[in-house]
Amino acid sequence: MSRKEFRDLAAPEEAHATIADLDVGGGSEIVSLAEASGRVLAERVDAGLDVPGFDRSALDGYALRARDTFGASEGDPAEFSIVGTVEAGERPAVEIGNEEAVEIATGAVMPDDADAMVPVERTEEVEDGLLVRTSVTPGENVMAAGADIAAGERALGPGTRLTAREIGLLSALGVDEVPVRAKPRVGIVSTGDELVRPGEAVDSGRGQIYDVNSYTTAAGVKEAGGEPVVYPHAGDDMDAMERVLRKAADECDLVLSSGSTSASAVDVVYHVIDEQGELLLHGVAIKPGKPMLVGRLAGAAYVGLPGYPVSALSIFRTFVAPAIRRAAGQSEPATATVEAWMANRERYEGGRRRLVPVGLVADGSGEMLAYPVDKGSGATTSLVEADGIVEMPADVNYLDEGERVTVELFSPEVRPPTLFGVGEDDPLVSRLLDRLDRPRYLGQGSRGGQRWLRDGVADVAVSSVTEAEVGIDLGGWTREWGLVVPDGNPDGVEGLADLVDREVRFVNRPTESGLRTSLANALADLADERGVERHELVESIDGFEFTLEAHESPARRVLAGDADVGLGLRATAAKLGCGFIPVGSERVAVLANPERTDKPGVEELEAELDEIDDLLDELPGYGR
Amino acid sequence: MSRKEFRDLAAPEEAHATIADLDVGGGSEIVSLAEASGRVLAERVDAGLDVPGFDRSALDGYALRARDTFGASEGDPAEFSIVGTVEAGERPAVEIGNEEAVEIATGAVMPDDADAMVPVERTEEVEDGLLVRTSVTPGENVMAAGADIAAGERALGPGTRLTAREIGLLSALGVDEVPVRAKPRVGIVSTGDELVRPGEAVDSGRGQIYDVNSYTTAAGVKEAGGEPVVYPHAGDDMDAMERVLRKAADECDLVLSSGSTSASAVDVVYHVIDEQGELLLHGVAIKPGKPMLVGRLAGAAYVGLPGYPVSALSIFRTFVAPAIRRAAGQSEPATATVEAWMANRERYEGGRRRLVPVGLVADGSGEMLAYPVDKGSGATTSLVEADGIVEMPADVNYLDEGERVTVELFSPEVRPPTLFGVGEDDPLVSRLLDRLDRPRYLGQGSRGGQRWLRDGVADVAVSSVTEAEVGIDLGGWTREWGLVVPDGNPDGVEGLADLVDREVRFVNRPTESGLRTSLANALADLADERGVERHELVESIDGFEFTLEAHESPARRVLAGDADVGLGLRATAAKLGCGFIPVGSERVAVLANPERTDKPGVEELEAELDEIDDLLDELPGYGR
Repeated sequence: MSRKEFRDLAAPEEAHATIADLDVGGGSEIVSLAEASGRVLAERVDAGLDVPGFDRSALDGYALRARDTFGASEGDPAEFSIVGTVEAGERPAVEIGNEEAVEIATGAVMPDDADAMVPVERTEEVEDGLLVRTSVTPGENVMAAGADIAAGERALGPGTRLTAREIGLLSALGVDEVPVRAKPRVGIVSTGDELVRPGEAVDSGRGQIYDVNSYTTAAGVKEAGGEPVVYPHAGDDMDAMERVLRKAADECDLVLSSGSTSASAVDVVYHVIDEQGELLLHGVAIKPGKPMLVGRLAGAAYVGLPGYPVSALSIFRTFVAPAIRRAAGQSEPATATVEAWMANRERYEGGRRRLVPVGLVADGSGEMLAYPVDKGSGATTSLVEADGIVEMPADVNYLDEGERVTVELFSPEVRPPTLFGVGEDDPLVSRLLDRLDRPRYLGQGSRGGQRWLRDGVADVAVSSVTEAEVGIDLGGWTREWGLVVPDGNPDGVEGLADLVDREVRFVNRPTESGLRTSLANALADLADERGVERHELVESIDGFEFTLEAHESPARRVLAGDADVGLGLRATAAKLGCGFIPVGSERVAVLANPERTDKPGVEELEAELDEIDDLLDELPGYGR
Repeated sequence: MSRKEFRDLAAPEEAHATIADLDVGGGSEIVSLAEASGRVLAERVDAGLDVPGFDRSALDGYALRARDTFGASEGDPAEFSIVGTVEAGERPAVEIGNEEAVEIATGAVMPDDADAMVPVERTEEVEDGLLVRTSVTPGENVMAAGADIAAGERALGPGTRLTAREIGLLSALGVDEVPVRAKPRVGIVSTGDELVRPGEAVDSGRGQIYDVNSYTTAAGVKEAGGEPVVYPHAGDDMDAMERVLRKAADECDLVLSSGSTSASAVDVVYHVIDEQGELLLHGVAIKPGKPMLVGRLAGAAYVGLPGYPVSALSIFRTFVAPAIRRAAGQSEPATATVEAWMANRERYEGGRRRLVPVGLVADGSGEMLAYPVDKGSGATTSLVEADGIVEMPADVNYLDEGERVTVELFSPEVRPPTLFGVGEDDPLVSRLLDRLDRPRYLGQGSRGGQRWLRDGVADVAVSSVTEAEVGIDLGGWTREWGLVVPDGNPDGVEGLADLVDREVRFVNRPTESGLRTSLANALADLADERGVERHELVESIDGFEFTLEAHESPARRVLAGDADVGLGLRATAAKLGCGFIPVGSERVAVLANPERTDKPGVEELEAELDEIDDLLDELPGYGR
């Protein structure tokens, strides 16, 4: 396979320039006023008529000739005869002579020959007419035709974003449809034999995964003002891929390919663009995002995004979204930044500019701490666990703990969580968090929670391991744990001893987990009982070292028939319809950072901890 | 007409509280992932499966048993035989034994018995196998099943706003539809016999005007996350109004009435709510916006907005939009504020809290100046000429020139104009502005422009009156002016003398306008010629004091048959197909504030002034 040589990765600035030179569409279209909100005007709109279209009474009162009021005052009113009435929306049916007045409503047409009006508060109706207790000048309390805007005047210029306010002016002008910048059509082609659309069944054994990039990219295109068109998957087959790419290029202004990380898919896309179109750039010196393609295909602009979701979205946000916004006439969103202190040291050696995703947490004094969020290439949870980006120049090798950094938020709407907790993955915690406003929680187990708390990053830890006093106990609950077995307990497992003495396949939790510590303690008791060393028992358990990250995972493994016994909670066994052999009960405590007990999110959590009786009832094996 | 007594206007805080107590809808609905962008999650989403669903190779390379690499290094590689290949998206068809390796692609399923992988860069294929030049630990370069997120773990909490990032996580979980907060349905009823929908013909003689509030309110509802339902107009008839209001109340969560300012329409709405529903609040101590109604009707919440568009939108933004956002689960947008200096003194005496709309302009040093925008009740252009609001407490009677104020921008996206110009309403100016990025321009005539420039508010003035040197001349053009007559000149008007000597109905421009000055000068010349005083000539002109605001207005009056001769430009006569009798030519100059010639918007304008040859060609009677 011979590739055109792009020896050096392009500098990010060069990638920006290359994409800026592409034609990403635009043009204009006519939309109805009701659909125009948020769109951008493509042409100037001049007023086609006068607003108001007639001399208009500004108040309720009486229309008359101003000169007939000259000299009138509270003590010396002028006298008028009332010769008629004009309501809003009717043609004046009367003419006005000297010392004659017409009752007139706000917004009504001034009669001919009336040149001013007096508000009703300054008048008095008497038996044979009207007393006017003030003098008015010609034009007073009248909005002249065209005074708001007159026919021929410039109303709105091209490039104006249409909000409620601009739509108000357009409707006043009687405009019911407007020329707006067309939304660039952006075709999204995801590649890779292993991708499955959400909603369909995925076969994990075959290595199938759900397509993420099509959805993140489509949402990003929409947010940038474009119209996403998601094409059916192309496999890794050259012909099929070429057909889909060409169809997308024919129908769209810009084609984005994304999806598979497999080398074969990337190679196929590369060849289609290189041979059928024009390849302008291959690779950019930024992390995440290196393997980016820029080119043209069949009259459309083309950008190939990296395969991993975090990289794809990062490249999309940095390089592609600005081009879509430009084509759509949308202005760049205000960049929202936050100054923060690095909570941990972050190393990196690589020589590429790096965009480090970080989460934010406010410390006790309201200062912001930033901690790197890096769950490894291919993790999708890091998409939602970060609040923004810290940029590391190519020649910087680390960010030090306590270093001052500027965090560029993902959008101006991003606000740091009100509460940042780390600890046990527990079904009561999940439900408790639902009652809080914008919490963030990382399920890193009891030991992980204590570590994040001790490091001064987390506001609270949720921990069932209470050996060390690392925080202030805000409250907690107990949960019954034991062995999860298939429904009906077909192996007749009766307790921990069966794990040691019988041939059953066990699934454990990792050492970070509270249940793992409780299991270790129970095994130590069993070893004492038998007068043997604990490690002897452990070595007899088939699968003791086979651990799964999340609290339901061992039970699910049992449910799937891939194990006989899993470490878990009675609540989990009940939820999944499994059998359960109780071993013990442990207390789970919510521990607060002593310097953050006054933080509103922590106070909110402490208050909710008093109100968990319904959750305790809902979860079998839970109690105070 | 007896009204329930609401003696005192409610404090704004009371109005907020009353609206907060209303049930403005909400609930939840299921939407597809493709439609979920921007919506707010109604329920917690837990992972229903492990991501990844299998132990996944993180790189291209070789899967093997870690223990077989122990001790291997660059100089002392371990040897393996290659027993197969696994691509992404396929089920591994091989088993691995001691010192065996399988070629594996990024994202592919790890074969059973392989517990680590070595990237291709650290290996070398040799004739009879593979050299591995590094040692790896169990699990290295492998993403374990569930390591990203495991089945049963909390993925996203209720209240989460779904952006591209959250949609990425949901798609990774295979979720193709999500429960989101329903958009509150907001019925919009506009009232008033005089209202006409944009796009239909308006009969100004009958006092008809276009409906503005339905459109601004609908756009505002959409921006706040609600779903607007615009109902057909109700007239001022009690039965018809009641039918429409009840229908809207049956079908919607919240009904907003708005539209007419006529007392009768307001009274009818008041009676429907008071008699058929429940009236909770009538009148709020804020300006603009006093006549606000809050209540309930047939199970729906109800808010009556004032009639004038600026007041209606202000009350909507201040009191109603937050309630819609709450019901939709959308968070309050970040309040964007700007500190500014008042450019003018603004007086107000009234005892109500006042929201003063202001425009913003950056001065030469980048400081912001705020000037009040108040074109009087009922003006719709003030909707777009302001950037935000300065709040004046009820007990403050004025804002002083030079006072420091905080301007709350209408939205975080609002940015002050790049250029602020005031002056002649001129067709070349309109076109020139189209070439600039976000200019603002007020057509206040030559004298108005000079005044705003002299006061240090405007960046530039566009003026044909060059008596006083008030700014730096950046360039300009000449325009031919004269008398606009009906096509074919049926009255045989030959020049200014005919206005004086014959019975023709003339339409003039106001004294602010440059043409008015040119006309005055030409009449002075005629008076000299005739050896009379100018005022004698002026007094003989029928309509000399009848002035219209905008540059096309006199010509349009002639076109409509309501006048015989109008003061205007050759370009206007040509555009409207009228006859034209030339009188003179005047120079229009663009004058810059001497302290702002370095402002980018001013520099941009100066550059564009050199490029107006096409505009001069396009406009008859224009030249250098």
